[in-house]
Amino acid sequence: MKKAVVLMSGGLDSCVTAGIASLDYELYFLHVNYGQKTEKRELKSFNDLYKHFNGRDKLIVDIGYLKKIGGSSLVDDKENIEAGNVERKDIPRTYVPFRNGNILSIGVSWAEVIGAQKIFIGAVAEDSSGYPDCRKEFYDAFNEVLKVGLKPETELSIETPIIDMTKSEIVKIGSELNVPFHLTWSCYKNETKACGVCDSCLLRLRGFEKAGIKDPIPYDKVNSSVED
Amino acid sequence: MKKAVVLMSGGLDSCVTAGIASLDYELYFLHVNYGQKTEKRELKSFNDLYKHFNGRDKLIVDIGYLKKIGGSSLVDDKENIEAGNVERKDIPRTYVPFRNGNILSIGVSWAEVIGAQKIFIGAVAEDSSGYPDCRKEFYDAFNEVLKVGLKPETELSIETPIIDMTKSEIVKIGSELNVPFHLTWSCYKNETKACGVCDSCLLRLRGFEKAGIKDPIPYDKVNSSVED
Repeated sequence: MKKAVVLMSGGLDSCVTAGIASLDYELYFLHVNYGQKTEKRELKSFNDLYKHFNGRDKLIVDIGYLKKIGGSSLVDDKENIEAGNVERKDIPRTYVPFRNGNILSIGVSWAEVIGAQKIFIGAVAEDSSGYPDCRKEFYDAFNEVLKVGLKPETELSIETPIIDMTKSEIVKIGSELNVPFHLTWSCYKNETKACGVCDSCLLRLRGFEKAGIKDPIPYDKVNSSVED
Repeated sequence: MKKAVVLMSGGLDSCVTAGIASLDYELYFLHVNYGQKTEKRELKSFNDLYKHFNGRDKLIVDIGYLKKIGGSSLVDDKENIEAGNVERKDIPRTYVPFRNGNILSIGVSWAEVIGAQKIFIGAVAEDSSGYPDCRKEFYDAFNEVLKVGLKPETELSIETPIIDMTKSEIVKIGSELNVPFHLTWSCYKNETKACGVCDSCLLRLRGFEKAGIKDPIPYDKVNSSVED
């Protein structure tokens, strides 16, 4: 069976992406701790999902330097995670500069060594927080880098199967694939009960709501504005 | 003064690159430990060069995961650094898969946060070991990633001022710029006296030889075949 590296944060999107990738590939799970506030909870989800999907191997990497570099409320201990606003047009403070470039690069190094043909990432462009490194153009450009930056015999490319989907479409596909939503974690802020108010919770809740499917994870508070 | 991040291994090429960058930019020095065998010696050169060039700030990052991922004699403790052969056409075992992609990504994150406009890297395409991530096409493609993968207001690009130069040209330019060759370290294998036989030593020695300039660092052994 062909091999694929799956970049697995432990959230909804990467879980559904793993479900899609598992149809055709033997999965190698990569998780990156970068100093995000919910690092421990994400890692638990990662390990649970690795077991669930019967991954062939896993790699957990610590890149504390993104926290040292800073520039994001997701990694800065002095800055609070702001309440979400899924209608905003500018890039929120939760954006971690070039985070996905760093994570992809790690995945590329691993994939080339193990001989994987694909790297799956659950990036979502439209129904998201507007991060520049979640858009299709970014992955298209990165794929061009892979054509020229690896050994001539390496055939590796990035797959973004859910990039053009809305959150509700992602939830629906995940449901059809029977992925374990209860094992995932999306909240930027809390580690026991999801906060229900950060961007990531808002987008997730709205996705489940619109899909008509109940989100099985516990929430501290569900803002009624996302439920209309 | 405009800001630039310089990727500084501590070797000859990055030293000359810093000399070129220092003509127009305030320098921010980035060094990456990735489990290479001469990690400590390189770090010493990095710190010495940071002082010499009066850098504005420095960032030292440990990415031990490249050693964990393996696939290279440069990071694998069980594998010896092979004697160099600067005429070979295939990619030698010292190639670290997508290393420069990883290092560049760190530099990009830092550069975006501090508002630097350039990232300088001392990659050399022709007179080198033939690593795919040292070729101009790789950096051109990476620059396209930066156009779409960062905040709209970020203007950042990678500069490779010595990529088309031969080693002897690099030595000559470095000499004209009065860069401190004696503070640099290029050997893949040793940390006290350079081995004189690995690819990196061979290329360096040949460069100094052809430039008619004496290499001021100590060598354990100088293979006469590089001196013809």
